[in-house]
Amino acid sequence: MHLSNLHIERAVRAALEEDLGHGRDITSECLIPLSEHATATLTAREDGILCGLMLALSAFSLTDIEFDMTVEKQDGDELKAGDVIAEITGPARSLMTAERVALNLLTHLSGIATLTHRFVSEIEGTGAEICDTRKTIPGLRMFQKYAVSIGGGSNHRFGLDDAILIKDNHIAIAGGISQSLDQAYMLAGHTVKIEIEVDTLEQLQEVLDNGKADIVMLDNMSPETLKKGVEMVNGAMVIEASGGVNLDTVRAIGETGVHYISVGALTHSAPSLDIGLDIR
Amino acid sequence: MHLSNLHIERAVRAALEEDLGHGRDITSECLIPLSEHATATLTAREDGILCGLMLALSAFSLTDIEFDMTVEKQDGDELKAGDVIAEITGPARSLMTAERVALNLLTHLSGIATLTHRFVSEIEGTGAEICDTRKTIPGLRMFQKYAVSIGGGSNHRFGLDDAILIKDNHIAIAGGISQSLDQAYMLAGHTVKIEIEVDTLEQLQEVLDNGKADIVMLDNMSPETLKKGVEMVNGAMVIEASGGVNLDTVRAIGETGVHYISVGALTHSAPSLDIGLDIR
Amino acid sequence: MHLSNLHIERAVRAALEEDLGHGRDITSECLIPLSEHATATLTAREDGILCGLMLALSAFSLTDIEFDMTVEKQDGDELKAGDVIAEITGPARSLMTAERVALNLLTHLSGIATLTHRFVSEIEGTGAEICDTRKTIPGLRMFQKYAVSIGGGSNHRFGLDDAILIKDNHIAIAGGISQSLDQAYMLAGHTVKIEIEVDTLEQLQEVLDNGKADIVMLDNMSPETLKKGVEMVNGAMVIEASGGVNLDTVRAIGETGVHYISVGALTHSAPSLDIGLDIR
Amino acid sequence: MHLSNLHIERAVRAALEEDLGHGRDITSECLIPLSEHATATLTAREDGILCGLMLALSAFSLTDIEFDMTVEKQDGDELKAGDVIAEITGPARSLMTAERVALNLLTHLSGIATLTHRFVSEIEGTGAEICDTRKTIPGLRMFQKYAVSIGGGSNHRFGLDDAILIKDNHIAIAGGISQSLDQAYMLAGHTVKIEIEVDTLEQLQEVLDNGKADIVMLDNMSPETLKKGVEMVNGAMVIEASGGVNLDTVRAIGETGVHYISVGALTHSAPSLDIGLDIR
Amino acid sequence: MHLSNLHIERAVRAALEEDLGHGRDITSECLIPLSEHATATLTAREDGILCGLMLALSAFSLTDIEFDMTVEKQDGDELKAGDVIAEITGPARSLMTAERVALNLLTHLSGIATLTHRFVSEIEGTGAEICDTRKTIPGLRMFQKYAVSIGGGSNHRFGLDDAILIKDNHIAIAGGISQSLDQAYMLAGHTVKIEIEVDTLEQLQEVLDNGKADIVMLDNMSPETLKKGVEMVNGAMVIEASGGVNLDTVRAIGETGVHYISVGALTHSAPSLDIGLDIR
Amino acid sequence: MHLSNLHIERAVRAALEEDLGHGRDITSECLIPLSEHATATLTAREDGILCGLMLALSAFSLTDIEFDMTVEKQDGDELKAGDVIAEITGPARSLMTAERVALNLLTHLSGIATLTHRFVSEIEGTGAEICDTRKTIPGLRMFQKYAVSIGGGSNHRFGLDDAILIKDNHIAIAGGISQSLDQAYMLAGHTVKIEIEVDTLEQLQEVLDNGKADIVMLDNMSPETLKKGVEMVNGAMVIEASGGVNLDTVRAIGETGVHYISVGALTHSAPSLDIGLDIR
Repeated sequence: MHLSNLHIERAVRAALEEDLGHGRDITSECLIPLSEHATATLTAREDGILCGLMLALSAFSLTDIEFDMTVEKQDGDELKAGDVIAEITGPARSLMTAERVALNLLTHLSGIATLTHRFVSEIEGTGAEICDTRKTIPGLRMFQKYAVSIGGGSNHRFGLDDAILIKDNHIAIAGGISQSLDQAYMLAGHTVKIEIEVDTLEQLQEVLDNGKADIVMLDNMSPETLKKGVEMVNGAMVIEASGGVNLDTVRAIGETGVHYISVGALTHSAPSLDIGLDIR
Repeated sequence: MHLSNLHIERAVRAALEEDLGHGRDITSECLIPLSEHATATLTAREDGILCGLMLALSAFSLTDIEFDMTVEKQDGDELKAGDVIAEITGPARSLMTAERVALNLLTHLSGIATLTHRFVSEIEGTGAEICDTRKTIPGLRMFQKYAVSIGGGSNHRFGLDDAILIKDNHIAIAGGISQSLDQAYMLAGHTVKIEIEVDTLEQLQEVLDNGKADIVMLDNMSPETLKKGVEMVNGAMVIEASGGVNLDTVRAIGETGVHYISVGALTHSAPSLDIGLDIR
Repeated sequence: MHLSNLHIERAVRAALEEDLGHGRDITSECLIPLSEHATATLTAREDGILCGLMLALSAFSLTDIEFDMTVEKQDGDELKAGDVIAEITGPARSLMTAERVALNLLTHLSGIATLTHRFVSEIEGTGAEICDTRKTIPGLRMFQKYAVSIGGGSNHRFGLDDAILIKDNHIAIAGGISQSLDQAYMLAGHTVKIEIEVDTLEQLQEVLDNGKADIVMLDNMSPETLKKGVEMVNGAMVIEASGGVNLDTVRAIGETGVHYISVGALTHSAPSLDIGLDIR
Repeated sequence: MHLSNLHIERAVRAALEEDLGHGRDITSECLIPLSEHATATLTAREDGILCGLMLALSAFSLTDIEFDMTVEKQDGDELKAGDVIAEITGPARSLMTAERVALNLLTHLSGIATLTHRFVSEIEGTGAEICDTRKTIPGLRMFQKYAVSIGGGSNHRFGLDDAILIKDNHIAIAGGISQSLDQAYMLAGHTVKIEIEVDTLEQLQEVLDNGKADIVMLDNMSPETLKKGVEMVNGAMVIEASGGVNLDTVRAIGETGVHYISVGALTHSAPSLDIGLDIR
Repeated sequence: MHLSNLHIERAVRAALEEDLGHGRDITSECLIPLSEHATATLTAREDGILCGLMLALSAFSLTDIEFDMTVEKQDGDELKAGDVIAEITGPARSLMTAERVALNLLTHLSGIATLTHRFVSEIEGTGAEICDTRKTIPGLRMFQKYAVSIGGGSNHRFGLDDAILIKDNHIAIAGGISQSLDQAYMLAGHTVKIEIEVDTLEQLQEVLDNGKADIVMLDNMSPETLKKGVEMVNGAMVIEASGGVNLDTVRAIGETGVHYISVGALTHSAPSLDIGLDIR
Repeated sequence: MHLSNLHIERAVRAALEEDLGHGRDITSECLIPLSEHATATLTAREDGILCGLMLALSAFSLTDIEFDMTVEKQDGDELKAGDVIAEITGPARSLMTAERVALNLLTHLSGIATLTHRFVSEIEGTGAEICDTRKTIPGLRMFQKYAVSIGGGSNHRFGLDDAILIKDNHIAIAGGISQSLDQAYMLAGHTVKIEIEVDTLEQLQEVLDNGKADIVMLDNMSPETLKKGVEMVNGAMVIEASGGVNLDTVRAIGETGVHYISVGALTHSAPSLDIGLDIR
């Protein structure tokens, strides 16, 4: 996924305004002369996958135009504790002002990329792919999904508007699986994919008989049931497994032959990756 | 901490707009008749502390004005898996449209309140308090800090503008501890508190000798060193411990006599609390 | 397509602010006493399809809270010249202030719905559907696409983010049709459909051989060529015809067996439908 | 009329954000390497008047800072089908991302300038001027009125706040023509012009007798009646004809001696002008 | 002048967000229980003209929906020290939170209305009117001009876009008075008035000879010179006097026969009017 | 206090958009050719303290990128009538367009700095400091407080969120002085200072006995009473005097030994400082 400058700048500007509150960094303005310059490095404090560097660097360049930056790592690179990510030289006062926003963005997104990478590594060779969900932190979905892609994951839909995902509640209200699929097929535009969630193999059979779904989500099934589901589908649809996925269970799920495994925790529960800024 | 309606509505509206993207929930508009009504419950799926209920309910009321809501729990209540938090009756289509935004806010903030509560419980009886940091997720600081307060924690400063916190980099540039404190004392307005971070007891002594700090942050010290620091300060300043704090180490730190223990993980790494919406 | 209140209010508020400029309706404030009430009707001045009534009514209710409204027609209804669409009673000053914004939205969207309806009627019975494009007027895409759906058309993608559409320039840069499709198939998430544009039947064959496209757009082909294309595809993909479509040519295109006919003019060149507001 | 950079950038940024939805151009990011560069030309596909070039070029420069642009035509120039308008060289991915927004703005505004120019040409030599109305497409008034001026038309008021226009409904509520004019004259500031709409020559006489209007709008009158009106006014006021104006009727209206002819269709019903972007 | 709810709410919401900063009123949330109710009065502490009451009341109703308000005075009413303006009953916490914003708006706008009223009273009976300028405080022009109208003044143009005002610098660049007027007359739309500033009676004669100006501004002239100017104009144009106007000089200027006297101080230097909020 | 570019640009852009209304400077576009260049000077027309130069210069650079600027004075410099502040060379049309916004910001902020400086000079040598309040003009607090600091004053809190200030109404509702202080001390975070307002020396004694306030505000006391208060406090708290402070009374208050004197008039009633722009 490619982030546009438009969205990066808007997000970083909002983050700076949030941190500056009434508009000042009292500590820095009291202690650091305007003319003072300094050089700082962004340095990894633990191992992981780097993500969000352009956002972090924007925090500095939006605070002050005078920064020189040398980039040592790129989004997606593996970091070892101690690795220098980038070196930033410029007005010391602005450097201190932008520090926390830069780190908050960088450590959060790198945390997501790192957790995604661990899931991806766990299922290496199975042919399955890890993907995200809409269980994101409000305001950051675009960036969190970017981090998933940087970590080697694939992106599920970005919002309620870019694909159909029929869940149990929709089925209940619409009057059954086949009726839901017929209706979605008739009303969705032709550029929209249709995915449906099923909890049992009986429901899966109904989806197969109907034939209008592009993707079926097998929800909360054991690896054994998933395997049976994969056999039943036999290539007729894309299969996504979801529910109860963690680093202990993901390999077994990946080996069942499903195409995608969706993991909400990538975006709602990834711990941040420790990265610091050191003034030299 | 008290959240204003102004801020709740603005944040929830932005979250809904993010999820709706180009402006529609394709699945619901294809499958759910406009006239259909339904009742749903917000239900805890694991134990924890509830936080963010007003935001979650706003997601529904901002999507459609016709909802009836019955509230069973309040922010700060302990939840047991299975507990019904609220019951919501209204247009089924809007119910489905607002669901994910409501849950994303509720599970994230309840996750923070729950983790805070675990830290707070861990140090019960020591007299210390848990507090947060500026290591928050951009765009949500106000709400994350609210969640910390609901979980029983105390709030550190909300931004660069509402207190002075002198860190090692500031000290290095300003030319030493005492000079930093003198300068901050002279330039900060009289309504602003001054906190300074020290790494050693020698530095702590310099802070004590200077006498102008309101709060000292003892960074990355062992419980033994912290205890010595507490004795040295002897009530002259508020003492905050930070660095290397986790659920295993926090009790020992709390028992040293420090007043506050700041924990970045509360806001940058809290896993979400599982809460679901069930249509009846 | 279902429009959310959130988006309606935001758009109408912006339209009112645009018309009010520095914040006042000089004519009305000079001539109409604050206490004066009046009743007005929205009345069709020519035949067509109504669209945008909720936006028009919002113009009044966002200007003043005291309006009573009686609705005689709904979006999608056929209008005959002289038909009363709605009756609005309230403060005369606010009625005059909101009039132009209400009519500008209503006549523009009804114009699109009406033109769409004419295209749809033209191909009745052929089994083809009329759809829109991204050739919309900036700022109004969501509402223009809503008007297309109200006129009986189907919606193509809403933006660059919700489906893949590979055009000649993409093919040229990516190095050919098959390579483009392979790459898109590999990199697009599984919830995203892939459409590709071709200009010749040779290219169409290449798309068929590759097998990874969901939709093929046959661009600027004669009805005869389209027919051959439909035979070649033989149900393997959704077929969309585009280019050179107008009310004279659309029937012949619809009879070739294509599934969708996309028409840019629906949104970039629809004349407005004449609707007026009469004070009684 | 002169457009400020402030307004151009704000409008174009909003248009890009609308098209990018959740923030990505999936097609281009899948198919075009970041390092690929390309050159494209904006080329007229039919004859008309160019308008909006600065907005179109902004679409590229706001998407990516690395573009080189060579401009061959200026706003107001006559275009022949095949004319190259500008040449743009830069990152191929961003070129494709910005293409549609650039064209949507350019073809819409050029469509308005072209239609205006046709009306203006039609009345050449009569001494009358074509002007626009407030019947614009919400969100684009400033730009649509700019396009009218580029097409050789004159601008009527930009909003409810910059001139008084007393219409039949105002007269009815205020209690007659003379009373309306007296009141407007007394209450409007001295920098505001007063225009009044009349439907009959009797009303016109009442306006003349009152003497406080700067402009009179003769609404929906035949050329013969207009001529009589012009004689009655005899230079005492500016005269604007409106209602039932189209390319067939405008010349006869222009020859009656009225000063301005206002045409709503310029902004609410102008078909777009076909302009394309070709990658070389 | 009539203020729309749209503009009032937007301005008051922004003012509340400015005062709340990171989103909380710490004092009130610590000291006032959520359930506590109170009644407060807005009371004049000095004599003057009331202005801005709707904005002040909005500060309360936007903070909390539960307020009951009784209004004793209206905008434009004369206040005596001690007069109760309005009584507000509702949640005590929100009452305290909104207090300062309500008062800041009310005292500022009442200050302007009061000062305007003093100027207006000073010239009573002369036939001249006091008007404002564009020398306003950024962000508040609409409201400041409203206050001028409430104080009995008239409004000059609201921005650069709603009238032409040719000043010395324009004349110098355009090449003289007559050339400036010719050009403005030719290029300005017919709904726009033309005003020109002159410093000498020779210049005034040039304006009179040209005949295309609607208004002439006599800048920095003594009452004697103004009188001569009035005689020269002899009813041919509206005359505005400006420059060096204060409460001591305004009467003499008003008696010269000019129509308008513009006073920048009304909006850039009016002291606030003391109004307080008392909890009962 | 240090203003960030982020906040300067946002404020100036909003001011320009306010002045441009529907988006044009009619006078300049009619009279000044696009290619014309000019040089202007910002010149003081009366004595005072300069403040807001970066905002004024931004008005030009945000309107047009082609300006050259030479700065002769800095914020905080004393101006004598006739002093050149800066020289600006660039497109004449944009120069005229930005003029008023630049001056409105500059004259307002310089007015505040100048008035602050007069208060500060008045108490020179007493050891007291002048500080501002939250009685600011909505939308400009950050900039007004910056102007106070440039004038030599100190800043009180910036909003409801960055310090506790307990006033009589809070005390009444919370149940007394000591209870208020206890509650604030318990609930406020440790980074927040507590100030309390008292009207009598009895109340002051209660505050002293309680011991939890950082600052006491002595409201509306005579110099004699203030002196007694200072003796009672005897260094135990910071003392702020407020109420009835003007240029005549401030010296006597400063000599009582209080630390801070807060003056609402600095921001709510400062007359603007006359500064002009002269084209050469």
